[in-house]
Amino acid sequence: MSAYKSLEAKFRRIGALQEAAAMLHWDWAAMMPPGGAAARAEQLATLKVLVHEALTDPRLEELLDAAEEESGLDPWQRANLREMRRRWLHATAVPADLVEALSRASSDCEREWRRARPENDFRGVRPKLHAVLDLVRGVAAAKAARLGKSPYEALLDEYEPDGSTAEIDRLFDDLSRFLPDFIDRVIEHQARRSPPVEPQGPFPIERQRAVALRLMERLGFEFDHGRLDVSLHPFCGGTPDDVRITTRYDEASFRGALMGVLHETGHALYERGLPASWRRQPVGEARGMAMHESQSLLFEMQACRSREFTEYLAPLLRETFGGSAAEWAPDNLFRLNTQVQRSLIRVDADEATYPAHVILRYRLEKALIAGDLPLADLPGAWAEGMAELVGIAPPDDRTGCLQDIHWYDGAWGYFPTYTLGAMIAAQLFDAAKRAVPSILPSIAKGDFAPLLAWLRAHVHGKGSLFSTAELVREATGRPLDASIYKRHLETRYLD
Amino acid sequence: MSAYKSLEAKFRRIGALQEAAAMLHWDWAAMMPPGGAAARAEQLATLKVLVHEALTDPRLEELLDAAEEESGLDPWQRANLREMRRRWLHATAVPADLVEALSRASSDCEREWRRARPENDFRGVRPKLHAVLDLVRGVAAAKAARLGKSPYEALLDEYEPDGSTAEIDRLFDDLSRFLPDFIDRVIEHQARRSPPVEPQGPFPIERQRAVALRLMERLGFEFDHGRLDVSLHPFCGGTPDDVRITTRYDEASFRGALMGVLHETGHALYERGLPASWRRQPVGEARGMAMHESQSLLFEMQACRSREFTEYLAPLLRETFGGSAAEWAPDNLFRLNTQVQRSLIRVDADEATYPAHVILRYRLEKALIAGDLPLADLPGAWAEGMAELVGIAPPDDRTGCLQDIHWYDGAWGYFPTYTLGAMIAAQLFDAAKRAVPSILPSIAKGDFAPLLAWLRAHVHGKGSLFSTAELVREATGRPLDASIYKRHLETRYLD
Repeated sequence: MSAYKSLEAKFRRIGALQEAAAMLHWDWAAMMPPGGAAARAEQLATLKVLVHEALTDPRLEELLDAAEEESGLDPWQRANLREMRRRWLHATAVPADLVEALSRASSDCEREWRRARPENDFRGVRPKLHAVLDLVRGVAAAKAARLGKSPYEALLDEYEPDGSTAEIDRLFDDLSRFLPDFIDRVIEHQARRSPPVEPQGPFPIERQRAVALRLMERLGFEFDHGRLDVSLHPFCGGTPDDVRITTRYDEASFRGALMGVLHETGHALYERGLPASWRRQPVGEARGMAMHESQSLLFEMQACRSREFTEYLAPLLRETFGGSAAEWAPDNLFRLNTQVQRSLIRVDADEATYPAHVILRYRLEKALIAGDLPLADLPGAWAEGMAELVGIAPPDDRTGCLQDIHWYDGAWGYFPTYTLGAMIAAQLFDAAKRAVPSILPSIAKGDFAPLLAWLRAHVHGKGSLFSTAELVREATGRPLDASIYKRHLETRYLD
Repeated sequence: MSAYKSLEAKFRRIGALQEAAAMLHWDWAAMMPPGGAAARAEQLATLKVLVHEALTDPRLEELLDAAEEESGLDPWQRANLREMRRRWLHATAVPADLVEALSRASSDCEREWRRARPENDFRGVRPKLHAVLDLVRGVAAAKAARLGKSPYEALLDEYEPDGSTAEIDRLFDDLSRFLPDFIDRVIEHQARRSPPVEPQGPFPIERQRAVALRLMERLGFEFDHGRLDVSLHPFCGGTPDDVRITTRYDEASFRGALMGVLHETGHALYERGLPASWRRQPVGEARGMAMHESQSLLFEMQACRSREFTEYLAPLLRETFGGSAAEWAPDNLFRLNTQVQRSLIRVDADEATYPAHVILRYRLEKALIAGDLPLADLPGAWAEGMAELVGIAPPDDRTGCLQDIHWYDGAWGYFPTYTLGAMIAAQLFDAAKRAVPSILPSIAKGDFAPLLAWLRAHVHGKGSLFSTAELVREATGRPLDASIYKRHLETRYLD
């Protein structure tokens, strides 16, 4: 067997173990009774150790070296090899005791954060966050040395392979010059009209679920290859052939669950559309978190909050929930779905202010990793940044630097992918509409097939063949820039 | 680290992988959309290969040898070591290519059987069954040589560790002398009264589920550590800390789902009660299929079809489903739950005739493995055996030797555990009632706590510390024999 073929066999096994772990994670969140947690943690830890052992097997390096010398590999195989080496680099770059220490410090700090957040006690959790940050900086330094990247980029690479801070700085600086003034203008613009009418509930959960299932089907979700269930924190899990998305329902409001399902369906369609002939191989996986978020936002934000789709959605919701014609007028629903306000909490933020929240976090985590910002100064820097970018400062840490789990749980370098995803979504949707003029008229009739076909061909089916930057350029004919995203925001919120 | 401790670490990992596989099996049956099957098969095959690799790791034999020389091991550790060696023997006794060939032949034959059974085509499936049988005999011979047992016992050992054909022959011969005449007498006895009245449905599924959950809770099922769901073939799966049982509902009849849930709850309580300090170690697992079946039958047959429990159950069902006082009279419900008739299909057979079906299969599979019965003669031998044991002969193979999946799917040596379980259940229940006189009066009030406490102490908590024979003797004060079971049948069906 060639070295390359041996690697495929090894990574097929790793892929199957990761799929098993993904299903067990889904079960944990959606099905598992609480008493199963300890045993489940043991099962998942064992799978993780086996994957790590497989990735750090000394023979892997020899095989990678040998395979890279092989001739006759096609571009998919070459890309697969590139991604294999990336996995191997990440797995071997960090000494086992450092990985172990970070894992322990993170769960320790995350537990303390769960206490500290409601108590508004940043000082109390700071020592544990300090321990996490020190270890994360150690990991970043170790990975940076092996990957030939800056420490922050070495962390970013796990979520956004080949992500570049120079590139993100360029895009985010552009956006940050645009957003504060844009937010001012939108808020003024919206204040000139009377506010939209919020339809009155209750909205029975069974009907919310029925309409969610119907919309998932319209978007292209294949129920032979997936499910919709309930979990505390909605997510898209499972595997490409068996995609499990979740939501949570609130009888008093239908919009959270509904928009959440459309968001997760976007993630699900990406997973489902990954190249079937590369299942359980690195090149067959999704191209990083920015591209993943672009698919959820393309459906939730670009397509499903459009005026066109709202024409389809409004009568369907009225039929489902009953109520007055005024409540369910498409223009009213559109305005409900595009209300903008300055707010403190990222996860509740609207489309227009969300990127400002993300840019702040990106700047802060970069400074913290670089050692340019002491943790003691974080609350102040947070408040300043919020004032500058969103135009509102938090009265306390609970609504400031204590709000997100990420840093406390050891996830550094993740934040920029949210807004990169939003920008990619705008650029992809723009290119798709220009390439296939029937896309928007079809969406107005609840038919997403033309859009999905374009995404399958230009994004989903490419797996990890290209870098994110290449994939965007291939699909849209130009490098990623902020202009289309800004134009989208201006058109939607100011016209 | 001592050799014994190294073994514990290795088996802990194996145990975690087996738990992961158990959860994925449950998901397959209860949750998975059909399109997930191929990927799931790959995930499960990978876990199986990893377990097999761990069990056949050459260092395992050295560790077993060394650990068996260690002094200071307590009885649980000794028993753990004994069960580790048993796993190792089973895993290493059979050459990999034979295991592979049997696995392929079995799925091949099982597929053909799915076609042949409805078409009544035993001749058509016979060549593939022949291939399976030849390979099973090869496996049996290989295991017999290593385990120092007869070929049939070597197969049996996988389901019923240390099971002995001399012992089963003794018990089953006793029963087979008893059953034909007993069945005659019961049928005559029941014919003397007008038949019980079957309550008329429909029985809404939500109400069936509600009453099932309530009864599970009464029996002692902990919903913090388990779930009830739906699957085509009801089973008890999951893990001791997260026991997943399933049932299936029929709006036209409540009894199948109800008695099925009580049966699976018996299995679940056994799993849940296994010794917590030995999780994911061989000695912490259930003591074989006969003991497992004894726990399901103890609840379903011994306790829940008793007149005492029926006094509690009947008004609860009337309250749940509505209907006339006559339909829901305890005596009527008791008689419905204890109707006896000669029938052709094992899985539909009642408590009194079921063991006759099992004894027939045990005799036939033993003769087939020994080479004393050619497959061509199986239909005839089946009809003869049914006539002798049950008093009725099948008109065709569909209702004869084609009815059970086991042999076609490569599972040989399993059948006797059903009736061994029924006998053990009778003997355990008898001993429990004598040891704790409050057990039966409590059950009459829907309180199973005294029974469960006795089972926890004398059966569940023992894991695989003892052999089945020892466990029965320890718990009941005497070796397993057929007399208590026969007395139970006579008391219930002839008094």
